Amino acid sequence: MSSPEQSSPSAVIGVLTISDRASAGEYADRGGPAILEYLNDVMATPFETVHRITPDDLSTIKEVLLEMAEIDQCCLIITTGGTGPSPRDVTPEATEAVCEKMMPGFGELMRQVSLKKVPTAILSRQVAGIRGKTLIVNLPGQPKAIRECLDAVFPAIPYCIELMEGPYLETNPEFITAFRPAKK
Amino acid sequence: MSSPEQSSPSAVIGVLTISDRASAGEYADRGGPAILEYLNDVMATPFETVHRITPDDLSTIKEVLLEMAEIDQCCLIITTGGTGPSPRDVTPEATEAVCEKMMPGFGELMRQVSLKKVPTAILSRQVAGIRGKTLIVNLPGQPKAIRECLDAVFPAIPYCIELMEGPYLETNPEFITAFRPAKK
Amino acid sequence: MSSPEQSSPSAVIGVLTISDRASAGEYADRGGPAILEYLNDVMATPFETVHRITPDDLSTIKEVLLEMAEIDQCCLIITTGGTGPSPRDVTPEATEAVCEKMMPGFGELMRQVSLKKVPTAILSRQVAGIRGKTLIVNLPGQPKAIRECLDAVFPAIPYCIELMEGPYLETNPEFITAFRPAKK
Repeated sequence: MSSPEQSSPSAVIGVLTISDRASAGEYADRGGPAILEYLNDVMATPFETVHRITPDDLSTIKEVLLEMAEIDQCCLIITTGGTGPSPRDVTPEATEAVCEKMMPGFGELMRQVSLKKVPTAILSRQVAGIRGKTLIVNLPGQPKAIRECLDAVFPAIPYCIELMEGPYLETNPEFITAFRPAKK
Repeated sequence: MSSPEQSSPSAVIGVLTISDRASAGEYADRGGPAILEYLNDVMATPFETVHRITPDDLSTIKEVLLEMAEIDQCCLIITTGGTGPSPRDVTPEATEAVCEKMMPGFGELMRQVSLKKVPTAILSRQVAGIRGKTLIVNLPGQPKAIRECLDAVFPAIPYCIELMEGPYLETNPEFITAFRPAKK
Repeated sequence: MSSPEQSSPSAVIGVLTISDRASAGEYADRGGPAILEYLNDVMATPFETVHRITPDDLSTIKEVLLEMAEIDQCCLIITTGGTGPSPRDVTPEATEAVCEKMMPGFGELMRQVSLKKVPTAILSRQVAGIRGKTLIVNLPGQPKAIRECLDAVFPAIPYCIELMEGPYLETNPEFITAFRPAKK
């Protein structure tokens, strides 16, 4: 928890870097810091973060996602890495395995946005889903793609977490505007 | 069956409102009537409708979908409600559970169309699939979204049902034009 | 193997026509030849092809896909046919059954591209996935749709196969440009 000084009930957001090389220290994790920087930019509500790094191993990823969801009580976990077609890429499979509900719109929109930049965006198998009161969103590994994917989906995340009965999150309108439909 | 006077073999279309509150009478069902009104506008072929309301309960929804498919012999069932990320939202799970084949293009297109209106369109987990000779299509709960989603997918529905060996449906070109590829 | 004269390690590409009528000889296979013609146009790397025709039978399709993946060692299998909503259409189910990983971006993009032509594009349930070192991509049955779908996804295929540790494929820039991100 990087910001234990927040008031309760505070929002806890998990960031999970999934990479054999970053996990072994052979390679600096760039995806995790890019997500943390993004969160610091866009979040107006105080929040704590939990940042972990795992290798591209199915059972380890599942275990860490479950710990972040159930012990750390993250309302949101953002992963980076492991979404491609390489033999070791198993992040979407691990995510589906721990989720009770899948949210196909997230992956569809992120691939659409990335497709405007590179035709290989279709190789990203990223998914999003819900485990209990935790929304899990996969992002690609490339730091450049992280901001463009989050810019696309983050406006829907605070309302999603509200519908999931999680904390009420507000965003910094200088960066993005969280959308909430008008009350009926 | 609201229109028992139709000629045989008539098309039976099911409308299923899925909502705890509408089911308990705490809330007027607005989605179901919006779908019925839409069908009356667009269908040129005579048809009967079966309209039911269920709570957001997985096994009840599955049971009602099966009854509408197998006993009422609906060629099409359109559901409204229960597609979001709330803990009680289980319409897509119930739909998948009774379907033999999924039709991913329906959900993709409806989310794309809704995304032009609201960034929270990605929260709708709506799916479509086939159970025997019944096409089941989930729509969101908001009456406003119903017409825009149906306008997007309905042009493909008559040909879909024809390929599924169901009744030949014609639409009112004043509203939408059912598309059928030229015969090879 | 239509071109056994290639140098080793050569790329083997499988083409699988899935059609009851083409398989029974009642109907000329037009999808398979359209894919072969496309490959001859776009591939700059020497390659061999394996072309097979099967009926729309789930277990037969699975068996043939496994033979093409494991015995013929295809790095890529392109199927045509069997992706619609007809009772006999089971190509996506057979593909999912033999794949370890699904690649949702392929189907999404191909449906998007086809939607610009016909509203019934949403009826195509085509998927793509990975079995070991084989990428399997479903295409619709209509020869016209084959070229437009391949034009959309082929630029990403050589990099996909490279990430899957398969052969290094190059394309003919007169037709399409295979995209590979700059090395980090």
